[in-house]
Amino acid sequence: MFTASVLTLFPDAFPGPLSVSLIGSAQARGLWALETVDIRKFSRHKHASVDDTPAGGGAGMVLKPDVAAAAIDAVSPSRKDNRPLIYLTPRGRPFTQARARELAAGPGVVVFCGRFEGLDERVIEAREMEEISVGDAVLAGGEAAALCLIEACVRLIPGVLGDPASTMEESFEGDLLEYPQYTRPRVWEGREIPEVLLSGDHAKIASWRREQAEKTTKERRPDLWAKHVRREGE
Amino acid sequence: MFTASVLTLFPDAFPGPLSVSLIGSAQARGLWALETVDIRKFSRHKHASVDDTPAGGGAGMVLKPDVAAAAIDAVSPSRKDNRPLIYLTPRGRPFTQARARELAAGPGVVVFCGRFEGLDERVIEAREMEEISVGDAVLAGGEAAALCLIEACVRLIPGVLGDPASTMEESFEGDLLEYPQYTRPRVWEGREIPEVLLSGDHAKIASWRREQAEKTTKERRPDLWAKHVRREGE
Repeated sequence: MFTASVLTLFPDAFPGPLSVSLIGSAQARGLWALETVDIRKFSRHKHASVDDTPAGGGAGMVLKPDVAAAAIDAVSPSRKDNRPLIYLTPRGRPFTQARARELAAGPGVVVFCGRFEGLDERVIEAREMEEISVGDAVLAGGEAAALCLIEACVRLIPGVLGDPASTMEESFEGDLLEYPQYTRPRVWEGREIPEVLLSGDHAKIASWRREQAEKTTKERRPDLWAKHVRREGE
Repeated sequence: MFTASVLTLFPDAFPGPLSVSLIGSAQARGLWALETVDIRKFSRHKHASVDDTPAGGGAGMVLKPDVAAAAIDAVSPSRKDNRPLIYLTPRGRPFTQARARELAAGPGVVVFCGRFEGLDERVIEAREMEEISVGDAVLAGGEAAALCLIEACVRLIPGVLGDPASTMEESFEGDLLEYPQYTRPRVWEGREIPEVLLSGDHAKIASWRREQAEKTTKERRPDLWAKHVRREGE
């Protein structure tokens, strides 16, 4: 079973969105499991201290290597745990839908939530942590990012969503953003559903949706569009 | 006071990480406020239904325009609320640290959390919603993304973080990822803190950190590096 173990200084930040809707009920049905581990319990310092000033000076505090490593080794002893060990940090490589699919197909994830100015670099190297960033804004800690990462994986586990087809045509699959959606009523505040969608002509609908997806991607995500064009050219 | 109003089908997903650490205590100190609003309460349909099948066919369900608009208009009556109205969707423009800074300087945000296959496009147009994506993986709903967006803003509000300097040298400010961090002990598992950081030579330390930041950005974020090089050339 896919198991997400989260190492955090703030276990109270969980489960948040992971407790609701289909993600929450999937956990209740035993399709995945969430474990939160309080990093502070692994401190052997006075007052259970977990941080210290940055070597070389600078603002803020840094998570101590011995405390972080003790927490990691307790939750995920090397060689006995084949789950990827992920460190959430703005310095990481961007999280992608492709990586979510890979993780969802595996045994789970061990996620370390950064806080303060970050974690001592030596732990990241020594424990071969995979550094991931979920987006281009800086958070107060890795907790909200962990919720995003875990949710993105869990929804791809077979049986979690009602209709697996709904994950195949969506944004980032095939480098295009999704087409716009409409539903009843046909006219709302004087605005009509585009006629083609009511035509019943499936080929026309597919081609309109494709055009819309391409137009939106070009406008909003020139980076994805460039990737898409390169791939189509291959 | 910065006020975040969140429209969601799952108010139980909140406050999650927004209740902990400096973000949580800042709310208790009255530096910002969080309001969650249940979209379902604004349905006038049978069984408080909020969704319907997509026009033109396809998997999943679409959020009904009348329900979404009623919720929006109740929370954020046009002309009386000057907070940006944000719709979180993978189809949106990427959220950035620059946008977080702008939002943090304003009166707050109204955040609409998408669910299912998305919201009827006509509401997005009619209410001039700003479509934002926090990252390149698809979530089950906008709730975890809302937590990221609000946290990224709130931490930039003066007085929320202990040391405002800590937000000035971090990743994404100035297009570079942050340099690596180290703290005591000097030797941990046989790994030493880089000597330059212990030298006390501030100019050398600054230049080493700059090199490290550039190296990491080049390796992990060629997109940010290209932007950085362009800006330096101007």
